[in-house]
Amino acid sequence: MRIGFLGPHATFTEQALLTLPESRGAELVPLPGAPAVLAAVRDGSVDAGCVPIENTVEGAVPPVLDGLVADPPLVIAREARIAVRFCLMGRPGTTGDAIRSVASHGHGIAQTRGWLAEHLPAAEVRVSSSTAEAAAQAARGEVDAAVAAPLAATQHGLEVLADDIADNAGAVTRFVLLTRPGPPPAPTGWDRTTLAATTTNRPGTLLGLLTEIAVRGIDLTRIESRPVKGRHAEYWFHLDCSGHVADPAMGEALAALHRRCDRLIYLGSFPRSDPAPDAPAAGVGSPVAALGVATADDYAASERWLAAVRRGADT
Amino acid sequence: MRIGFLGPHATFTEQALLTLPESRGAELVPLPGAPAVLAAVRDGSVDAGCVPIENTVEGAVPPVLDGLVADPPLVIAREARIAVRFCLMGRPGTTGDAIRSVASHGHGIAQTRGWLAEHLPAAEVRVSSSTAEAAAQAARGEVDAAVAAPLAATQHGLEVLADDIADNAGAVTRFVLLTRPGPPPAPTGWDRTTLAATTTNRPGTLLGLLTEIAVRGIDLTRIESRPVKGRHAEYWFHLDCSGHVADPAMGEALAALHRRCDRLIYLGSFPRSDPAPDAPAAGVGSPVAALGVATADDYAASERWLAAVRRGADT
Amino acid sequence: MRIGFLGPHATFTEQALLTLPESRGAELVPLPGAPAVLAAVRDGSVDAGCVPIENTVEGAVPPVLDGLVADPPLVIAREARIAVRFCLMGRPGTTGDAIRSVASHGHGIAQTRGWLAEHLPAAEVRVSSSTAEAAAQAARGEVDAAVAAPLAATQHGLEVLADDIADNAGAVTRFVLLTRPGPPPAPTGWDRTTLAATTTNRPGTLLGLLTEIAVRGIDLTRIESRPVKGRHAEYWFHLDCSGHVADPAMGEALAALHRRCDRLIYLGSFPRSDPAPDAPAAGVGSPVAALGVATADDYAASERWLAAVRRGADT
Amino acid sequence: MRIGFLGPHATFTEQALLTLPESRGAELVPLPGAPAVLAAVRDGSVDAGCVPIENTVEGAVPPVLDGLVADPPLVIAREARIAVRFCLMGRPGTTGDAIRSVASHGHGIAQTRGWLAEHLPAAEVRVSSSTAEAAAQAARGEVDAAVAAPLAATQHGLEVLADDIADNAGAVTRFVLLTRPGPPPAPTGWDRTTLAATTTNRPGTLLGLLTEIAVRGIDLTRIESRPVKGRHAEYWFHLDCSGHVADPAMGEALAALHRRCDRLIYLGSFPRSDPAPDAPAAGVGSPVAALGVATADDYAASERWLAAVRRGADT
Repeated sequence: MRIGFLGPHATFTEQALLTLPESRGAELVPLPGAPAVLAAVRDGSVDAGCVPIENTVEGAVPPVLDGLVADPPLVIAREARIAVRFCLMGRPGTTGDAIRSVASHGHGIAQTRGWLAEHLPAAEVRVSSSTAEAAAQAARGEVDAAVAAPLAATQHGLEVLADDIADNAGAVTRFVLLTRPGPPPAPTGWDRTTLAATTTNRPGTLLGLLTEIAVRGIDLTRIESRPVKGRHAEYWFHLDCSGHVADPAMGEALAALHRRCDRLIYLGSFPRSDPAPDAPAAGVGSPVAALGVATADDYAASERWLAAVRRGADT
Repeated sequence: MRIGFLGPHATFTEQALLTLPESRGAELVPLPGAPAVLAAVRDGSVDAGCVPIENTVEGAVPPVLDGLVADPPLVIAREARIAVRFCLMGRPGTTGDAIRSVASHGHGIAQTRGWLAEHLPAAEVRVSSSTAEAAAQAARGEVDAAVAAPLAATQHGLEVLADDIADNAGAVTRFVLLTRPGPPPAPTGWDRTTLAATTTNRPGTLLGLLTEIAVRGIDLTRIESRPVKGRHAEYWFHLDCSGHVADPAMGEALAALHRRCDRLIYLGSFPRSDPAPDAPAAGVGSPVAALGVATADDYAASERWLAAVRRGADT
Repeated sequence: MRIGFLGPHATFTEQALLTLPESRGAELVPLPGAPAVLAAVRDGSVDAGCVPIENTVEGAVPPVLDGLVADPPLVIAREARIAVRFCLMGRPGTTGDAIRSVASHGHGIAQTRGWLAEHLPAAEVRVSSSTAEAAAQAARGEVDAAVAAPLAATQHGLEVLADDIADNAGAVTRFVLLTRPGPPPAPTGWDRTTLAATTTNRPGTLLGLLTEIAVRGIDLTRIESRPVKGRHAEYWFHLDCSGHVADPAMGEALAALHRRCDRLIYLGSFPRSDPAPDAPAAGVGSPVAALGVATADDYAASERWLAAVRRGADT
Repeated sequence: MRIGFLGPHATFTEQALLTLPESRGAELVPLPGAPAVLAAVRDGSVDAGCVPIENTVEGAVPPVLDGLVADPPLVIAREARIAVRFCLMGRPGTTGDAIRSVASHGHGIAQTRGWLAEHLPAAEVRVSSSTAEAAAQAARGEVDAAVAAPLAATQHGLEVLADDIADNAGAVTRFVLLTRPGPPPAPTGWDRTTLAATTTNRPGTLLGLLTEIAVRGIDLTRIESRPVKGRHAEYWFHLDCSGHVADPAMGEALAALHRRCDRLIYLGSFPRSDPAPDAPAAGVGSPVAALGVATADDYAASERWLAAVRRGADT
């Protein structure tokens, strides 16, 4: 099994990938940028690909969201989340006043913007395809310093000049493992289903979609809007929902969204990487929301009742 | 085939029953009161029974609604509606000042209350099991006059003393033909489905039920509340919906209600007796309501898509 | 102060009226039937009137609901509920086999229908304007027996032939005290507001009304449909809601319903006669419902914020 | 009047600012980056500031969304939208194979990513604070080429090497003019109101917010999620709504959201820059949505009715 990842080696993405069971025994293939990872999965040159999708500070990773809704379809088979820690690093002996250029991935730049403005106000900031590539550039002398993971300093023989320089401490990034469509992992009871939907641009259509979800007791955990390329004021809504496509409630909700949407893309059902709560969330059992998600047994019972009604049997 | 009806002969119910195709060649059996008709259908002494269920002036007929939710289940196989026209009638030669007692069915009394109060303020009003029975009482001399259908005057040799005496002109009564459970009549594209539901008595549960219906594009055409016998502040909601139990949208809605309700009773799908509109009603295509009712083809397409998603095929 | 009530003396209505503080020192005026009570309040011949509105067995009292939506407006100033207990009574010495006629109010007949059918199958049943009037008829010898309250036997010198004969034990009737419009009683924290609404007959309009109520955290405790006289398939929805017209949430909801409805009739805010729950009902804090009813302080704070926003102040 | 803008001169932002009436006679102050513009408005060193907020290809501009929810508050006083057209430009005589480095703003890079990968696969890509700054860097010889607006070539004496190189033609960017809080521009009948909201992270809370908006007939035209800094799985929802804070419907909706949200930030009401439709959008007049937005007259009428009800007057 070959798994591509946003490379080169020593990226946060590689760190995340190494936490996944799929990485054991697999050949891990660094690729230059998230679009390259998605392309490699699509063309079959790798069996799966790992990319960041969301960060607690920077939000969604737009090229990943936009790449997911391209054809042919891909699905998410797994997710992982790791804390991100940014360091400023340079060749041994580099001093702050000698730094006239600093490189990082766009997210690394964004998350250390304040620190860089304060401590290196005069340095030119260059965007790299990854934080690890930025470290490599520093090692090759193309830039004076890089903002990257501590692992990258080790790997490229760089010295950490300043540690933990993110403007917001405690940032966490969520990564996803993408594959071509195939049977989803079995339900675990604590799963996530990811979708992307477009609708005709009419008042209230988003409310209609969310009602289809809520009325079946499914929790919407995240919503993002991304412009539909080339169409003014139309959006892809990227939706993360609690539950698994094998659940009857989720299946019924997906079929209902499919009938309502201009286009609905199923992006996978997989185990959630955030801890399950000890107790059900408050607010369930509400007017519109179902009284919690009906179980497969509940659905089976109601389907048996309906079948009896339809054939005219006593119920 | 034996069909019971709210008798005796010459009731509005018999008039309604005679408009139904089921009455042709059937033995029509007059029975004393709606509860007797329901009981006869339940115990198999008749194959079907015809009773009034709703009047545009008096509203629902409570004993029929209450009788429908008793066990074992009955279903509505057909409906009819006829205009009701009340006359005051007595033995030939009766004059107004000689009328000290007047009989009618409770609904006849209710719908002519104003006229009776004005023209026969001193007359004692007696409740009969039907308007036709009231006419028979008048013919037997047990009361001086009856409020009944014109047909009853003919049938009992009575003279119409005053015609069209209803306080509200243009009243229409809807009648239903009840049977034991059996396959429903085939969908016609303009059908009604009747339900009765109880829920736990919590804020917003009714809103939840109506949302399950609306989100699937189904129109609620009538709602009645009836107390649940022996339980304080709990109600049976009697719901009339557009559509047929064989429609996928209705089937899904019924199964959803079945999961939400303490008890859901299916009371039949049958052709509507009111004229179909020329054009779809305004308001469809709304935020929460589906964009009209999805057709069986729409459902089939979405089910195929879901099945493909679940087995991991390209979609 | 003169208070009319559904008479004559010894009705359940008089019993209910006597439990209300308004009855102390007032002149209590028995009137023949609920419509007469409403008319007397409307024309000013009494200051208030007491009538039954709902029974846990028989449901709503249609002529009261229909009378409330007539012009000019009336409002409910108070409610009471009492358990109803029906007895069969006759002149002393009456025996069961001598009973060929029995009288009661329509509700008394309805609630003892099963008992009468079993024990007095051959007796003629006559409708009276009240149970107490039925007892008076029995005392005058116009009928052989009456179904009425125990008090009526005492008052008319009748003998109780069979006690507690209701088909469903434990029936409770709710009564209302009506007045011409005037300032409502002060909020108590456990109040009810009663409304009647008609809307254009379009799909989903009822869902729209219920959403206006639920979104403001108001609980709908009862809904009844009554036909709009002379208009086919249009209904008055009679709504009972938790809360008081003086509450900001209720005021905003009423104004919103007023903008949506063809006609909205306010029928009063008054203390609830059912016991307040120890704890808030489950289900509050739901998606659509507000997180409980916002208090007057919450509203005042949000209005101050809005005023600041509108004048361009920092917020 | 001093107006800051995302500089230097010749940015798309300056082009957009010049279309606004506020720019006439004002001193236009180029500032290095959107955060600098927001900071200058906040500290009073300029009276207003112009920044891009949304692009039809790239979506929202995250640092602007994140900067808007910082303290103290800012508001949007105006919006403009212009088509963006990217050119590759270099010093006169530059040829493609001599280009080893190319600079642009992050959005310029993102929107020409495909073109650059195809035509300049080996070139190093550097991020600049603006497209105009990238052109200046090219003029100074710090990079070999820049991706920027045609105007920047003119201004910096550069040669357009390739015109209209965006991967998606027809991209439009929306810009906003920010000020410190103050009275909003007068309503025009075609306005937008922008909000940011956080809620407790519970199932269905987003549905609740959208219902508050829809039930008052207000159209939600855009929704974005941005992580709340330092709080896991919590989001700022950035909402664009049809209508003006001076409208009663919008005012009531804002107050309702204020009561529901952990924090609600009003970000301004201002004329919409997209053309008004000839006819009302379909879908209005739906179950949950009000029958269109109620006008100020509708609100005034319903408030008068409510006031009469509350003081006990006839209505």
